[in-house]
Amino acid sequence: MRYFILFAHPEPEHSFNAAMLRHGVDRLREAGHEVVVSDLYSMNFNPLASGADFKGRRFPERLQYDREQKHAVQHDLLADDIKAEIEKLLWCDIFVMQFPLYWHTMPAIMKGWLDRVLVNTVIYGQGKRYETGGLKGRRGMVATTTGAYEAMFEPDGLLGDYNRTLWPIHNGVLFYTGLEVVPPFLAYSPVHSDQARNDETIAAYGEALLAASTATPMKFHPLTDFGPDFRMRADVEPASDGHYRR
Amino acid sequence: MRYFILFAHPEPEHSFNAAMLRHGVDRLREAGHEVVVSDLYSMNFNPLASGADFKGRRFPERLQYDREQKHAVQHDLLADDIKAEIEKLLWCDIFVMQFPLYWHTMPAIMKGWLDRVLVNTVIYGQGKRYETGGLKGRRGMVATTTGAYEAMFEPDGLLGDYNRTLWPIHNGVLFYTGLEVVPPFLAYSPVHSDQARNDETIAAYGEALLAASTATPMKFHPLTDFGPDFRMRADVEPASDGHYRR
Repeated sequence: MRYFILFAHPEPEHSFNAAMLRHGVDRLREAGHEVVVSDLYSMNFNPLASGADFKGRRFPERLQYDREQKHAVQHDLLADDIKAEIEKLLWCDIFVMQFPLYWHTMPAIMKGWLDRVLVNTVIYGQGKRYETGGLKGRRGMVATTTGAYEAMFEPDGLLGDYNRTLWPIHNGVLFYTGLEVVPPFLAYSPVHSDQARNDETIAAYGEALLAASTATPMKFHPLTDFGPDFRMRADVEPASDGHYRR
Repeated sequence: MRYFILFAHPEPEHSFNAAMLRHGVDRLREAGHEVVVSDLYSMNFNPLASGADFKGRRFPERLQYDREQKHAVQHDLLADDIKAEIEKLLWCDIFVMQFPLYWHTMPAIMKGWLDRVLVNTVIYGQGKRYETGGLKGRRGMVATTTGAYEAMFEPDGLLGDYNRTLWPIHNGVLFYTGLEVVPPFLAYSPVHSDQARNDETIAAYGEALLAASTATPMKFHPLTDFGPDFRMRADVEPASDGHYRR
C-alpha cells in the first residue's frame, strides 16, 4: 500500500506527535508499505489561499478562488507547491492527516493545505463529490493528539463526542472528496501521561496505520441517499453524526 | 455596544463577503455602536503558530506552544501582533467571526488567528474555560457565506445540519472561551443568487449584527453540568449538538 501522511506540528522534531510519526513510518515500511510524508512546518508550507496560487488568472480584477482553481487546472497554471501535493494525493492509497488538535481542529498550516491543495476540477467540483469525488478508491484517516482526557470526549463528556468534533473533517473533507473514512486515532493527553503509557500509544498508532487498509469504514451518506432536492430520501435512515430528521 | 469583527476573505474588496462587511459596519455605526475590524488578509496576518511568537522562551530546546504562551503572558513576551489582537478581544462586547466557509470551517488565516491569539492564561487555561473563560460577559457569533444551498444544510440535507458543522467552533472556541453564542448568520450561495436576493441577504446581515446583543443565545453545557469525572451529571439532559447519552 501507498501511504501519504500529512503532518503538522510546530515542534516537528521533539514533540510527541513527531515520535508517533517516526514510529508510524518505520512500522509501515517494515511491513513493506511505501510512505510519503509532507511535514508542513519543516517544508515551510504556505497556508494562504491567494491570487499568487495561479500563474495566470481568468478574472484578474476579482479573486474567485474556486473558479480560478478550475481555470488553472485546465491551463496548467497552478503554483508548483500545490501541484506537488496533488501528485502525492493521487499517488496514495491511504491518506492520513496527523496533527495536534488546536481549537478542536487542525492547526492553520494544515487547514491552508486543504484550502490550496484540494482543488476544484481535480479533487472536487462538477460531478466530483462524495462517492464520485476525485479521491475515490482511496481511504482517509485522522490521527490527532489532544490535551483532553479520554472521558472528556465521550458523548456525555465535557467536550462531547469526538466524532461530532471531527464531523466537518470526516464528512466535509475526507468523505466529500471520495475517500472511505477510517475511524480516527486519538492520543489522549500525552502531556499528562507517563512514558510507559505514551510508548503504548505510539505502538498503537503504528498498528492503527497498518490496519487502515482493512478497518471497517465509518458510515456516511453517499449522494445516492439524497433526492434531486438534496434531501435524504424517505427510505433512508439517518446514520451519520451530522444527519437526523426533525 | 463594542463590536469586534474578525474578517477573512482572499478578495477583501470585491467579494460578497466584503459587501456584507461594509454594510454591517455602516449599519452598526449608524445605530451608535463602536466597531473594530481585523481584516486578516489586508493586514497580512501571520497564521503560523511558532516559536517566533515569543520574545523569550522558557523551554528553548522544545516548543510546547501552550506552556510558552503562559510564560510569555507572565513575562510580557508575546509578539506584538498577538498582543494587539488580544486587546481588541478584551475591548469588545460582541465578537463576530466572518468568513467564507472553506472545507466546512474558516480559511487558514483565521484559524491561525485562533491558534495564536487565544492564549493560555488570558483567554483559557487553569480555571478559565466555559463560563469561567477569559472572554466571559461577552457574546460571540459566526457569520459565514457558503456555496451550498439552504436545503443542503438542513438536518436531512446533503451536508447535514449546519449547527453540527459549526459545533467545533461554537462549543470548542466561542463557548469554551466564555462567550455566549449567538445563532450564526449564514448567507447561502450568493454566487448562485441574483442581485436582489443578495441585497436582501446583506441587509439581513446588518440586522443580525444589530440583534446580536439581545438574541437568545444557543444552548451549550456549562462546567456545572459535569461532575468531577468530566461526565455529564445524571440530572442533566443533553441539549447541545455534540452531547448525547449512549
